[in-house]
This record gives sequence, C-alpha cells and structure tokens, in this order.
Amino acid sequence: MAKKPLILITNDDGITAKGIAQLVKSMQKIGDILVVAPDKPQSGMGHAITIHHPLRLSKSNQFEGVEAYTCSGTPVDCVKLGIYEIIKRRPDLLVSGINHGSNAATNVLYSGTMSAAVEGAIEGIPSIGFSLLDHSSDADFEAAGHFASQIASAILANNLQKGVCLNVNIPKGKLEELKGTKICRQGRAFWEDSFDKRTDPFGGDYYWLTGNFSSTDKGEDTDMWALDHGYVSIVPTQFDMTAHHLISQLNEWDLNN
Amino acid sequence: MAKKPLILITNDDGITAKGIAQLVKSMQKIGDILVVAPDKPQSGMGHAITIHHPLRLSKSNQFEGVEAYTCSGTPVDCVKLGIYEIIKRRPDLLVSGINHGSNAATNVLYSGTMSAAVEGAIEGIPSIGFSLLDHSSDADFEAAGHFASQIASAILANNLQKGVCLNVNIPKGKLEELKGTKICRQGRAFWEDSFDKRTDPFGGDYYWLTGNFSSTDKGEDTDMWALDHGYVSIVPTQFDMTAHHLISQLNEWDLNN
Repeated sequence: MAKKPLILITNDDGITAKGIAQLVKSMQKIGDILVVAPDKPQSGMGHAITIHHPLRLSKSNQFEGVEAYTCSGTPVDCVKLGIYEIIKRRPDLLVSGINHGSNAATNVLYSGTMSAAVEGAIEGIPSIGFSLLDHSSDADFEAAGHFASQIASAILANNLQKGVCLNVNIPKGKLEELKGTKICRQGRAFWEDSFDKRTDPFGGDYYWLTGNFSSTDKGEDTDMWALDHGYVSIVPTQFDMTAHHLISQLNEWDLNN
Repeated sequence: MAKKPLILITNDDGITAKGIAQLVKSMQKIGDILVVAPDKPQSGMGHAITIHHPLRLSKSNQFEGVEAYTCSGTPVDCVKLGIYEIIKRRPDLLVSGINHGSNAATNVLYSGTMSAAVEGAIEGIPSIGFSLLDHSSDADFEAAGHFASQIASAILANNLQKGVCLNVNIPKGKLEELKGTKICRQGRAFWEDSFDKRTDPFGGDYYWLTGNFSSTDKGEDTDMWALDHGYVSIVPTQFDMTAHHLISQLNEWDLNN
C-alpha cells in the first residue's frame, strides 16, 4: 500500500478557530497530519514574517491524536517553522484555513491564510488556501470541509505545477445549495476604506480601519462572479508579480540622463 | 505654471530611518510632500493591515517644513490613512523607502516597503518602492536618492499604466560606480530558512528566523542579475497573482464527483 501523504495544516484565525478543526477533520481522511497554527488570530497579516521578535513554538493538544503546535508568529512563520524546524523536509501538501471570511479577488494580498499557501508555493509544495464566506465564529463549515477533501485529493492525484497554489473560496450555504467548483481568475477590486475615528478615555484619538470592497470588474470569469452565483471559486495563484507586458514600454522611458 | 504634484511618502523602517530622510530630500525637488510613516520599524510586514488593534496617528516634526505623521500600524495602514483620512484624495505619486536592504526577487512579497507601493497601485496611484542593498542604519543613500528623483520624474512625465508600480533596487556604491537602470522581471528565488534556537533565562525556548536567499534562476533579465552586475533594477509590478496559463489545465481536473 502506498505511503500516506504528509499534510501540513495552518491558518490565520488561530488554532482554536472552528475552521481549522474542520480542515483537520477533512484532511484526516487523506493523509498524516501536522498542524502548526498561530496561537492567536492573525487575520490581515498578509505575507508578514517575524524578524523583530523571537518566535515561540509550543506543543498543543487541540486535536485528539494529531501532532500539533502553536506559534507566536504569523501564518508564514508557521509554514517556515513547520518545514525547517519541525519536520525538516517539505510535506506532500500544505493546506491553510478554513478561513472565516472571503479571500477572493485582491483580498489574496492581505490574507494570512493565502500567504501561508503562497509561501508553500514558493517552497515548491502543492498548497491550497480555503476560505468560507462567513465571518461568524460558529459558521457552518460542513460544505467547505467537503470541498476541502475533494480539492486536496485532486491536487494529490494530479500534478499541480510547482510554484502555484490554489485560492479556494466557498460560498455560505448547505452542500446541496452549492453549484460545484469553477476555475477562475482573481477579480480586480479594491477596498474603499474609511476610518472610524474615536477618542479614548484619556483624550487620545484612535482609528479603526473599516471599508467597502469595491469593484468595477464585470468579467464572468472572476472569483467574485463565481461566488456571487453559488460556485466554489478556485484561482490558481502564483507569486511572480512582474507586469511582463510593460517591460518593452518601460524600456522606452528616458531614465539615465 | 503647472501645479506641483502631491507626493505621499512612506516606508517600513520607520520615520527616523536615514532612507526616508533621503527620499524626502529627493522628492522636495519634484513636488509637495506628505509623509505618513510607521512610528517603529515594520520590516517584513508584507501586505499586513491592522484590524485587531486600533491605529494611532500623530503629527511629527521629523522633517523641517514638511507635513508629516507617524502611524502605529504597518506601511499599508500608512497609505490607507494618508489617502482616506489625511488628504481624503489620491496623491499624484506615492513613493516608499528608501528601504535599508534589498527587496529584489521574491522579497517583494515579504517587503513592507513594496507592499505600500502595491497598495498604491491597487488604489490607482502611480507608485514606486525604493530599496538600497545596504542594511546598515548609516548607509550612504546619495546614489539611491539621485535615482529616486530620476525615476519619480520619469513616472510623472510618462503615463505608467494604472494598477502597476515599480520595484526599484539600488546597488551599494557611489553614483559613478553604478551602470544606470535596467528594466527587469522579478527573479525567482526563495529563502532557505533556518531557525536559531535559544533558551531564555527562564528555561523557555525561542527562535530567531534566519536564512540564505537561494536561487536557481539563471536568467539575465532578472533584477538579481542586474543588481549583481552593478545596475539599478526596475521591475514593473502588478497585483494579479492568477496563474492564467494554468486555467485551461485545471479545467480538466475532476473536482465535482
């Protein structure tokens, strides 16, 4: 019998979040599991790494019968510690999530969940980030868990090109309400931010970042469109951010006089 | 006479870093300036935003005759506060840096300096991140400052496509030692990490993230190659991370049974 694949699991909502518990459950059917997750919520951490503070790593009993650790750092720190310090090799699969809230469109840039998956891709590991379009801490992750095992099995069965990960977003709803998966491109959108300005009891001002996600991208091939129409969106995601199509144009600029 | 352009300046090394002082000096020749910079070093923060803590914003007298603020958050927070809270409009140019240390190749993903520029691009602002290949706090920023004004003037004179920013890295050395600029693609590389494990005075283990930047990309069109050969590297950088070339292949996978 073939050896079971080793699956590294992390997230950005922290080890006690409901989403990662579902992901552990879904992955247990597929392989051997190692969990390295932040010890506190790390949403919005993007591709941050911890270099100004030391990192702490602790054994965790969060999941019965599963080797698990918490880390004081970011999701990307968790991936690096998992690979270079705990198992000292590349796992067969890296999964991150299931995030509480969407990471579709440009949210991929702000997302700790997706940055862990992108870090996996940089390391040459087949990697997937999963997010459910429901922010509530007791969200129903059953359908998301179903798709997580489905897509993880597919990535292990097929050869995903090295340096690519998948950004998977799952609409809210029961499994039978969802229309299945759709391969998409990253939608173009931005946060129209506003700051909620308040005054603390000592007279000092402070701000909370809020905002509306705003888009003029009318394409029907985007992850935003798919999610709006009841599909699970899958965006193959890579980390070359070069605007290749502009290289010839920029070579016409006069930059050296 | 034409109105002077409004230039928003930020960085990730914090408002007291030598690199941002040089950037202010270089931009003063070109336009009106607003500085919104972190109140402490934020290296390695990637595209992180602050959502679990409130943000503080304070007036700063760091630069004589220049409107400046410090912010308790990340470089991306600084950009958002600058645009949505302080000037309540988009500046004509956003510049970030000059970073103490390289942000070439895949470092663009971990870099707070570049994330501020990418955030500018998402907001539709012509944006540039500058980095000098010298980590020392008293590095010589003169040549870097020269190229910063050169490239900022060029971006204002030419129309850089919306949604694109420039990742500019400058080798260490005197101006006359540098060979000029080179338009490049992002080199492919990764950090071969290692963790320096230590024990605190109370018996607890902690880790420092260290590592070697490692690459097998032999292309002579990369930023790494240009920098190794004495050129200032300029990579046009965008934020669509879709692996477009894989969409047709992924559509062949069986994901819905």
